[in-house]
Amino acid sequence: MKKIAVALVLAFSFYQAEAQNYADSVAFRKIFNEVLTNGECYDWLHDLCKDVGHRLSGSPQADMAVRWGEAVMREAGFDSVWLQPVMVPKWVRGQKEYAEILGVGQVDVLALGGSIATPTDGITAQVVYAETFDDLEKLGREKIAGRIVFFNEYFDPTNINTFESYGQCVPYRWKGASEAAKYGAAAVVIRSVGSAYDDFPHTGSMRYLDPEQQIPAVALSTMDADVLKEALQQNADLQFRLVTYSQTLEMVPSFNVIGELRGTTYPDEVLVVGGHLDSWDVGEGAHDDGAGCVQSMEVLRTLRASMGQPKRTVRCVLFMNEENGVKGGHAYADWAGTTGQKNLFAMESDAGGFTPRGFSLTDSAYVSYFQGLKPLFEPYNIHYIEYGYGGTDIHPLEDHGTLMAGLVPDSQRYMDYHHTENDIFEHVNKRELELGAGTMACLVWYISEYGLPVH
Amino acid sequence: MKKIAVALVLAFSFYQAEAQNYADSVAFRKIFNEVLTNGECYDWLHDLCKDVGHRLSGSPQADMAVRWGEAVMREAGFDSVWLQPVMVPKWVRGQKEYAEILGVGQVDVLALGGSIATPTDGITAQVVYAETFDDLEKLGREKIAGRIVFFNEYFDPTNINTFESYGQCVPYRWKGASEAAKYGAAAVVIRSVGSAYDDFPHTGSMRYLDPEQQIPAVALSTMDADVLKEALQQNADLQFRLVTYSQTLEMVPSFNVIGELRGTTYPDEVLVVGGHLDSWDVGEGAHDDGAGCVQSMEVLRTLRASMGQPKRTVRCVLFMNEENGVKGGHAYADWAGTTGQKNLFAMESDAGGFTPRGFSLTDSAYVSYFQGLKPLFEPYNIHYIEYGYGGTDIHPLEDHGTLMAGLVPDSQRYMDYHHTENDIFEHVNKRELELGAGTMACLVWYISEYGLPVH
Repeated sequence: MKKIAVALVLAFSFYQAEAQNYADSVAFRKIFNEVLTNGECYDWLHDLCKDVGHRLSGSPQADMAVRWGEAVMREAGFDSVWLQPVMVPKWVRGQKEYAEILGVGQVDVLALGGSIATPTDGITAQVVYAETFDDLEKLGREKIAGRIVFFNEYFDPTNINTFESYGQCVPYRWKGASEAAKYGAAAVVIRSVGSAYDDFPHTGSMRYLDPEQQIPAVALSTMDADVLKEALQQNADLQFRLVTYSQTLEMVPSFNVIGELRGTTYPDEVLVVGGHLDSWDVGEGAHDDGAGCVQSMEVLRTLRASMGQPKRTVRCVLFMNEENGVKGGHAYADWAGTTGQKNLFAMESDAGGFTPRGFSLTDSAYVSYFQGLKPLFEPYNIHYIEYGYGGTDIHPLEDHGTLMAGLVPDSQRYMDYHHTENDIFEHVNKRELELGAGTMACLVWYISEYGLPVH
Repeated sequence: MKKIAVALVLAFSFYQAEAQNYADSVAFRKIFNEVLTNGECYDWLHDLCKDVGHRLSGSPQADMAVRWGEAVMREAGFDSVWLQPVMVPKWVRGQKEYAEILGVGQVDVLALGGSIATPTDGITAQVVYAETFDDLEKLGREKIAGRIVFFNEYFDPTNINTFESYGQCVPYRWKGASEAAKYGAAAVVIRSVGSAYDDFPHTGSMRYLDPEQQIPAVALSTMDADVLKEALQQNADLQFRLVTYSQTLEMVPSFNVIGELRGTTYPDEVLVVGGHLDSWDVGEGAHDDGAGCVQSMEVLRTLRASMGQPKRTVRCVLFMNEENGVKGGHAYADWAGTTGQKNLFAMESDAGGFTPRGFSLTDSAYVSYFQGLKPLFEPYNIHYIEYGYGGTDIHPLEDHGTLMAGLVPDSQRYMDYHHTENDIFEHVNKRELELGAGTMACLVWYISEYGLPVH
């Protein structure tokens, strides 16, 4: 009798588990159908890119973007929509930069974000070629002082994930000026950190590690980097002329834009989805990170339209100032710590609006739990569920014990457009953008429904 | 003692298997490194798209493409390169079509491949709206005779694989004219079979099931299909004017272009890789199927450069006439049956030069064997190994017991460009194209090394 009872309990448990799996798969299908049929994120992105355009922290366009985000969330009818004040840095490019390889011709450069300007009449100097920081030491102060260091670090094409190659090159952008300044360099020119061989220079953030040693830093397109390299091979004494106008002003007030659906059962357990509203001051910030912003808003719209009000609070945060300060991310986390609510989970989309491949999780203890959802995700070609990075803006939530996740889209095209004039709406595909939003919405729905296992 | 011997044998087998797995993973890495570092397929595609352009079977450009393919293979130094004669149909569009919704304005159409022309002074008639073939029966001959049938079948956005939605819509393109002609229709206008909402009409092949009942057939862009639908809602009696000039001429001689690396150990076991050289007569045939052609040539170049001469013969076939006749595919299979060689395996790339997701196999008995290679493929984000379609050009090899495979790239963007003016080189990403070639090369290398298991 006891055996029969155990068998019945087991059979019933199995039946329950199967029924739940089936119900979950139906939920995923409803969520994807909703976003693929009625999704608004692509139209939202069009408006952000074309009506606002690029929107560096502290710029008038960043203010427009804040108002745009607030208006979209109100129009979408989220339960609460508010602006969270945050002070942000203000760096301005000023006039278009001028650069010329004397005797060869003019080349297109972009000042790196945070760079100081050249003197008003520019810098004209010989060029010193380096591929690594080690090269600086080999060259020594004698060969570097007063000259322009050209860091020609190549983007490794053999990494399948282009973010790995990006990570290998970024130190030259971030601290190339600081390292070269130690040897008395007059300025730094870097090969753009990007995967495309084209004539778009890539900007991006840099910092002066020693405030006493500041020199201008700019990026050349990959094609122009080759032009400069070849010109140097012809004439090691050639002169490079550089005039830039950028400057860092006082910090200014700005905002994170926040909207939420209040949880029906556990309103004080919060699931955050977000992207960053600021962008560099070129192009339209379409993939970086207009895509993440509109996907995050789409998560809330789609969830309510397809599955009704969530059990846990789902909050969308459009973070200000990811690109050059992460002030919005810190402001949100600081505030979150004061609310008495638990930020259970946070997911960021900041790797482009490309076909989603999966997501990474910041706590390895949860990886196998979420890998258990693979049968639910595989019909949507989502295969990648691994330990990894969450996102720059949500990272400050680590102190609150929040589980963080990063959407992992296909990375092949991202570094072609990243931080360039070429990061425009036309390079975002509607279906790819929507599938990313669908992936986020399914994951968020699952956690809103079942919470997180204790471990 | 016996136990120790068994244990030793097992341990050695395990060691051997591990060593082989390691060697295979090193081979895969070498192959991907070669294609990502020294790959020539992207430059080849540039030349095919920009120097030759679109190349419908029987056109002067198709002849140029044959000479181009032969020259590339000779330049790449394949062991043998030859042209295989094949007679192909010749359909010509003639002058640009003219279409107008009277009282509304001109719209852009493309005649479907194989369509007859309108009379010289065109057809002007009322429009009958249909979304399915069933609608024709409901309308009946009385409402259809002498009128233009407008098939407005929508592309289903909820299928994750866009080829499924394509398959649902294609019958209206393929036999819409034949079905409408049964009811005495004067012509057929279809909503373009495509995933994008834009103003590019999509052409593609159609046939007359009854040679006595031929009426002209054209495609409207998705945007113009909505214009026509709305205009009909305003005025059910509106007139549509259509003038087309297309005609089918006599068949003409053409060629498949073939090159091979001769196997060192099993030269009479042949592994085929291919794509189709012809394209529709608009755009540049970049994704469809210039991509498959250059990837197939890249497989041979990359294999030899990274792994040396293969054990089995690896043959690249650029098939002529996939789009409107498949004469090249049949000619190759017919010839292959006469050579005394065994065409062990054939792989086609004809779904665009997008990030590869995996491959499908036409024989379900082999699926679990190849799924065993997942650990080798997953570092390259290749997850999809399933039973499915091979390719239109290799399909005739079925009669020879050839195992066939189709490269499965990400499908989200393909149906935006397919058969339109917009299928151009600029929409192909270098890395995505190369990763597809790398996936093909690894699979072909593995079979060239180990053959196929008997079952």
